[in-house]
Amino acid sequence: MAVYTTLSAAELAALIAQYDVGELVSAKGIAEGVSNSNWLIETSGHGGQAERFILTMYEARVDAADLPFFLGLLDHLAARGSPVPRTIHDRDGAASRTVQGKAVALIEFLPGVSVDDPSAEQARAVGEALAGIHIASADFAGQRANGMSLPQWHKLFDDCGEAGLRSIDPELPGLVRRELDFLSANWPEDLPHSVIHADLFPDNVLLLGDQVCGLIDFYFACTDITAYDLAVTHSAWCFAKDGRFKPDIAEALVAGYASRRSLSAAEWSALPLLARGAALRFVATRAYDWLNTPADALVTRKDPMDFARRLAFYATEGERAFPRVVA
Amino acid sequence: MAVYTTLSAAELAALIAQYDVGELVSAKGIAEGVSNSNWLIETSGHGGQAERFILTMYEARVDAADLPFFLGLLDHLAARGSPVPRTIHDRDGAASRTVQGKAVALIEFLPGVSVDDPSAEQARAVGEALAGIHIASADFAGQRANGMSLPQWHKLFDDCGEAGLRSIDPELPGLVRRELDFLSANWPEDLPHSVIHADLFPDNVLLLGDQVCGLIDFYFACTDITAYDLAVTHSAWCFAKDGRFKPDIAEALVAGYASRRSLSAAEWSALPLLARGAALRFVATRAYDWLNTPADALVTRKDPMDFARRLAFYATEGERAFPRVVA
Repeated sequence: MAVYTTLSAAELAALIAQYDVGELVSAKGIAEGVSNSNWLIETSGHGGQAERFILTMYEARVDAADLPFFLGLLDHLAARGSPVPRTIHDRDGAASRTVQGKAVALIEFLPGVSVDDPSAEQARAVGEALAGIHIASADFAGQRANGMSLPQWHKLFDDCGEAGLRSIDPELPGLVRRELDFLSANWPEDLPHSVIHADLFPDNVLLLGDQVCGLIDFYFACTDITAYDLAVTHSAWCFAKDGRFKPDIAEALVAGYASRRSLSAAEWSALPLLARGAALRFVATRAYDWLNTPADALVTRKDPMDFARRLAFYATEGERAFPRVVA
Repeated sequence: MAVYTTLSAAELAALIAQYDVGELVSAKGIAEGVSNSNWLIETSGHGGQAERFILTMYEARVDAADLPFFLGLLDHLAARGSPVPRTIHDRDGAASRTVQGKAVALIEFLPGVSVDDPSAEQARAVGEALAGIHIASADFAGQRANGMSLPQWHKLFDDCGEAGLRSIDPELPGLVRRELDFLSANWPEDLPHSVIHADLFPDNVLLLGDQVCGLIDFYFACTDITAYDLAVTHSAWCFAKDGRFKPDIAEALVAGYASRRSLSAAEWSALPLLARGAALRFVATRAYDWLNTPADALVTRKDPMDFARRLAFYATEGERAFPRVVA
C-alpha cells in the first residue's frame, strides 16, 4: 500500500509513448495495492478526450512469470462483460513491459469507491459479480496453482513458531494446531474448480451505489475450489469492525452468488469448512506479517486475531454463516 | 508523503455532496505532500463531463488557523492568472470544512508532472512563474510570518544537539555554528518583502514540456524577503543528484525570474547570502528529521549533507551561482 519505486517524468513519458493512448498529462503515485507500486495516469487520449489508466509496477511479491496469467485473465473476463479492468497492450501488442528491470502494465481505470460498511444490496451485487467471474473464466485456458493453500499455511505457521504465535495470543498455537490437523484431514478434493480471485476484500471492489464497477487486484488469482472463493469473500465481508457477524450481509452475498451460479449440495455442505480454511489462511499471513513487521514501521499491521475469531465462528456456527437460499 | 487518515466511501460521498461538483465517482489516496493526506477525486461534474480535484486533509503539521491565508492566496493568485490551483468553495462559500475533526479543502486538479532533471527551458519557465506569483501577490491582503526562519533554524539545531549533528557528519557542528553566526550578523533587513512560496522544489511544480501548469503545495508560504524565494528555488533546482552545480539551469532560472521581475542591485548582491540561508534552512529540517526518524521507518530520510554541500558552494562561489543577467 505504497509507491515503492520512483519513476521520473521522463521515464513515465517514454513508457506511455509505447502505448496508443495519447501523451502523458499527469501521473500521481497512489496508495493502493499491497505488493505493487501504482500510479494514476492521465493522458491526452484521442480526439481531445482525456483518458485515465492505472500503471502498475510489479514489485518483489508478484512473480513476473505469472503476469501472462493475471493479465490474460483480465482481458478474458473483460471481453465477457465482467467488471474487471482491461489490460492496455502496447504498440507491439505486449501486455507488459519492463522498466528499471521490473515488469509494468497499463490497466484500464475504472470508476467506483471501496466501501468498508457494505449494504445488503451491495453485498448481493458483489456475490453476483463473483459468480460472474467464475462462470466467465470457464473457457479461460490459463492455469495457476494457488500459492497460498494448505501447504503454505503450514509453512507460514512453522515460520512463526509456537512462541511467536503465543506472543500474539496465548490461545493461538492451540487453535492453529487443531485447525491445521482438522483441515488437512478434511479438505475436500472433489469439488468443482475454476479460476478464483482468492482475495476479494472490500478494498478490491469498486462500487457506485449498488453497482459493482470493478473487481480489481487479481494478483492472488489462481485455479482452485470455486466455492472457496465465496468462502474467502464471506470471511472478508460479513463481519463488523467489532467482530460481530452480519447475517443480513452474509445472506445477501450468498443469495447474490447463488442467483448467478448454482451451488451443488456438496458445495453447500463444504462452505463452513472452506470458510474455516479461508479464515486460517488470513490468520497465517497476518501472523507472519505481525511477527516480521517492525512495530514502528509506517505500515498498518493487521491483527491476526480478527480472523482467528472468524474461524471460531465458522467452526461453531457454520450453518448460520451460510444460509441456504433457494436459487 | 502518504495518506495518514482513512476516509470511508460514505464519508467521502457526504463531503463531496457539500460542493457543487456532481457526485463522487472515484477517490484514490495519493502519495503526495509531506504533511497532509491527499486524495485524487473524480466526480460526475456537470453536463456529463467528469471533473477531477485534489482533496487535502490537513494533518498535524499544518495549523488550521493558517488555512485562510493559504487558501485565500491560491484564490488570489489563480484569479490573476498564476498557474496555481483554485480552492473549490462549498455550497455555503466556505474554503475549508471539517471531517473527523480535521480541516479539509477541495482543490482544483492541475495537469502536469514533476521533473527531477529539468531542462534549461523548464528552469526558465519556473523562474518566470515564481516572479509571477511575487508580482500577483502584491495586492494580497493576507500576512503570515515565516515559521521557518533564522530563529527556527537555531532552535532546530539546538534540538539536534552537537553530538547529534556530529553523528551525521563530523564537520557539521562547525559548519552550522559558523553559518548561524554569520547569517545572524548579516541577514538583510531592508530588502523588498512579499508573499513567498518558500518551498518550490521540483516536486511542487507541475510541467508539461516547457510549460508550467501548476505551482502547488503552498503550505510554507509566508511573508518574507522576496529574493529569498528565488534563493530557495535556486538551491532546490540547480544541483545534480551527485551534488554538481548546474550553471545552465541556474542561469536560466535566474534569467527567467529577472525577465518578469527586476531585481534591485541590493537584491542581486544579497542572493548568495540568501542562498546560504536557504541551504541552512534545509540542513536544519533534514538534520532534525534524520535524527528523529527511525532508520527502518518507511519514509525516505533526506541526507542533510546534500544541502550542507550546497551551502559551502554558495559561501565560496556565490557570484557564479547567481550570474547577473540583463533583464
